[in-house]
Amino acid sequence: MNGENLLNVKDLSFLSEIENMAIVGVSKSRNFFFLNAHLENFKGKIYAINPTLKEIPGYDDGTKGLIYSSIKDVPDRVDYAFITVPREKVLDVVDECAEKGVKLVSVFTAEFSDSGTEEGLRLENELIKRAKSKVRILGPNGMGLYYPKKGIAWRPGFPANPGRVGLICQSGGLVNISVFMAKEMGLTFSKVFSYGNGADLDFVDLLAYFSQDDETDYIIAYVEGIREERGKTLRKVLEQNKKPIIILKGGVSTAGKVAAKTHTAALTGKNEIWNAIFKQFGVIHVETLAELIYGALILDSYGPVKLNNFIVCSVSGGYGVMITDLLEKYSMRVPQFSHEIQNQIAKLFYRRGTSPKNPLDVSVQFYDMENLYNIFDLALSDEIMDAMIFDIPGWYFDPHYRLRKYDDWEGNLFKALSLGQKFNKPIFVVIQRTDFLETRYNTVKKLRELKIPVFGQPKEFLPFLQEMNKNFEKWK
Amino acid sequence: MNGENLLNVKDLSFLSEIENMAIVGVSKSRNFFFLNAHLENFKGKIYAINPTLKEIPGYDDGTKGLIYSSIKDVPDRVDYAFITVPREKVLDVVDECAEKGVKLVSVFTAEFSDSGTEEGLRLENELIKRAKSKVRILGPNGMGLYYPKKGIAWRPGFPANPGRVGLICQSGGLVNISVFMAKEMGLTFSKVFSYGNGADLDFVDLLAYFSQDDETDYIIAYVEGIREERGKTLRKVLEQNKKPIIILKGGVSTAGKVAAKTHTAALTGKNEIWNAIFKQFGVIHVETLAELIYGALILDSYGPVKLNNFIVCSVSGGYGVMITDLLEKYSMRVPQFSHEIQNQIAKLFYRRGTSPKNPLDVSVQFYDMENLYNIFDLALSDEIMDAMIFDIPGWYFDPHYRLRKYDDWEGNLFKALSLGQKFNKPIFVVIQRTDFLETRYNTVKKLRELKIPVFGQPKEFLPFLQEMNKNFEKWK
Repeated sequence: MNGENLLNVKDLSFLSEIENMAIVGVSKSRNFFFLNAHLENFKGKIYAINPTLKEIPGYDDGTKGLIYSSIKDVPDRVDYAFITVPREKVLDVVDECAEKGVKLVSVFTAEFSDSGTEEGLRLENELIKRAKSKVRILGPNGMGLYYPKKGIAWRPGFPANPGRVGLICQSGGLVNISVFMAKEMGLTFSKVFSYGNGADLDFVDLLAYFSQDDETDYIIAYVEGIREERGKTLRKVLEQNKKPIIILKGGVSTAGKVAAKTHTAALTGKNEIWNAIFKQFGVIHVETLAELIYGALILDSYGPVKLNNFIVCSVSGGYGVMITDLLEKYSMRVPQFSHEIQNQIAKLFYRRGTSPKNPLDVSVQFYDMENLYNIFDLALSDEIMDAMIFDIPGWYFDPHYRLRKYDDWEGNLFKALSLGQKFNKPIFVVIQRTDFLETRYNTVKKLRELKIPVFGQPKEFLPFLQEMNKNFEKWK
Repeated sequence: MNGENLLNVKDLSFLSEIENMAIVGVSKSRNFFFLNAHLENFKGKIYAINPTLKEIPGYDDGTKGLIYSSIKDVPDRVDYAFITVPREKVLDVVDECAEKGVKLVSVFTAEFSDSGTEEGLRLENELIKRAKSKVRILGPNGMGLYYPKKGIAWRPGFPANPGRVGLICQSGGLVNISVFMAKEMGLTFSKVFSYGNGADLDFVDLLAYFSQDDETDYIIAYVEGIREERGKTLRKVLEQNKKPIIILKGGVSTAGKVAAKTHTAALTGKNEIWNAIFKQFGVIHVETLAELIYGALILDSYGPVKLNNFIVCSVSGGYGVMITDLLEKYSMRVPQFSHEIQNQIAKLFYRRGTSPKNPLDVSVQFYDMENLYNIFDLALSDEIMDAMIFDIPGWYFDPHYRLRKYDDWEGNLFKALSLGQKFNKPIFVVIQRTDFLETRYNTVKKLRELKIPVFGQPKEFLPFLQEMNKNFEKWK
């Protein structure tokens, strides 16, 4: 096991069997940060390894684990180790892990090939030798593995509930931001790999793993580069892959390429080659971390879809005009309803200052929830329409907002927004960020439970929809 | 007074003299919404006009105003009236306002020309006649005037403190979103006009007013269209204007043009004509409401500036790479430091996993505030550098964040970020939205007091900087 298969990628199928783990290099000066993080949700035993430490407050009663001076001394099976010892000691620890039968280690310690020094590079090569392909390595210079189902998490506050999106991230800083940003949007992950220098497990291995992983439906990644000799395997993996992939490629600018080299020793490669790969295999290429997470949110909500014709429904006529302009900019359309449906919708518009044409300007009628439900029902029933965008300012969800007076207004709005399911048509909600923080956040969470994605403004998702439309044929 | 000057724009200089106002059509069914909103901060008397209403709880003791059945009965000067009576009664109210000597009215009531009916159009024309150029009109179908210095505000919760940005908005819904969105970012306004159908005061008049207004340094606007015969005057106003202007133009798409016609009866005009005007007069053209407000935030913080060479300083190497890529995409650069400064900066980088080159990857050194101050001081002193982008995830500002242990860490960070003033170089802060809502919000507020703008991700401001660079020569 742990070997390489015909595809020349490493086997990680053992991940689902992880039962116990160890933190090697628990540190009082860091207030046992990584130990405490893993203790939050890990299901099995966590052994704390430190040659001199005698006690850890609140931990060492043995219920969750015990302190040992070496991983070799642990009288139990250890499947996974998080290594955070000084660079000079990493090799010996990996030796011990190999001996102990540990299947995977995350090496948090940096200054291997990423240091740009000969010594760093030598140590990284030595590291691979010591692992003897018995121990798989994430890192060095990475955060390792976040696996919610098992409760493996290198940070406190990472969500404990698993999702269906897999994230591969070459940067340890970006991966933390990604997880918390996703959390704010109600998006969770099946597994997250932060592989740093990728000395052993690299982008290609992890992509191949997710591509076959039953717990993962969609793959997103931040990648700076791969070793040149892995190009062929990457193409093979992408060829066999059936899951939608979104990639944020770091180091596409001249200065960015230099910076990436310093950051993770990555050779960022020629943009033309990457762009050709993206195009050939239908990879959605995004430009910011936010776009990566927003894109994942859309896939997680609706899967890959092709969307041309939009219903726009706005509480503010001006905002509806703006969304309409933007949809056309991003190669989508806001067509008129079919004659019969238009007539029926028009009957439901009874207040002045509203408009029953697409973009629908419901204005204050919006408070009349039964009416809004019926408008949505009719609009979504139109065969020409593929999807709907609904926008509403954050303050409507503020319970102190003075004009609000209907029973279970919010619940009824959610019911209307759930009509997307009836017609199998995606609904995208824009709730502008307007100084009602908690209120907005709570609403986003509730809509997320209904699998309806929420954004702060239309440019957060329209460029992604355009890219998805372009690449849709590859995933059908 | 209130006439038109040589430029063919209406005089609004009387705004600074408003002392008392009236709400015509206070309504119990709306829970006195507009009365209560104005009562929050208005400095003078507010008279409530309703022919049948006898009492308003908490209001009618006379200290703030009294109820009258007609504005003509008010035994006091009334300078400004907010009109929210049914459409059929608007004309008579305007008659009375003219008689009473009211200088400005906001007509909230809709279904004039915006209804698209002959009757609506007729009533709108009649409205102008009744005003006899004695009363200036904002609307109909608009929110009117928000003037923080006077405490005039049609909504509860609008900030009471005035700023230096003037906003002109053809849409009543958009204007509310704008004010609250700006509030979240710590941006306030000198005055805001929501002019709806623009029957009397139109975009051109209001632009001319702001262009001459001592309380306004920067002008931003959402405009759908102007009447064709106003094109010449618009050019003249723009020719004489010396203040930076940002415009969000609604109705640039085919479907958007139709929607705008319904929304405010606006003729959106040919895109080529508008684009030519924008280019000729250095108007910054944006595509979303968020970009309009973000742009205003940048102008309000640093004025118009031309920025080519950026220092990027990141807590996450990957995020620094991404920002560097984006800067190049938007025609800006991340150059290396001059030799001497690079050497000095390198001496301050002592931790593994960091990088002293531009983009600076400070990583955990970030906690060492004195050191960070010195790094910023050196980096900003480099003559080649025009500005800096600093990014940091929201959780660093969470007081419960475990690794945080330095005294007044936040205060010291703000001190370091204030070094931009020493070198007169703009600093842009990115604090990612990562589920630490209140913490992030409070930090944004504090940084805003230091006139340092904060964003959630780089694409929120980089497109604007590119447009600003292009148009800079017009404003020097």
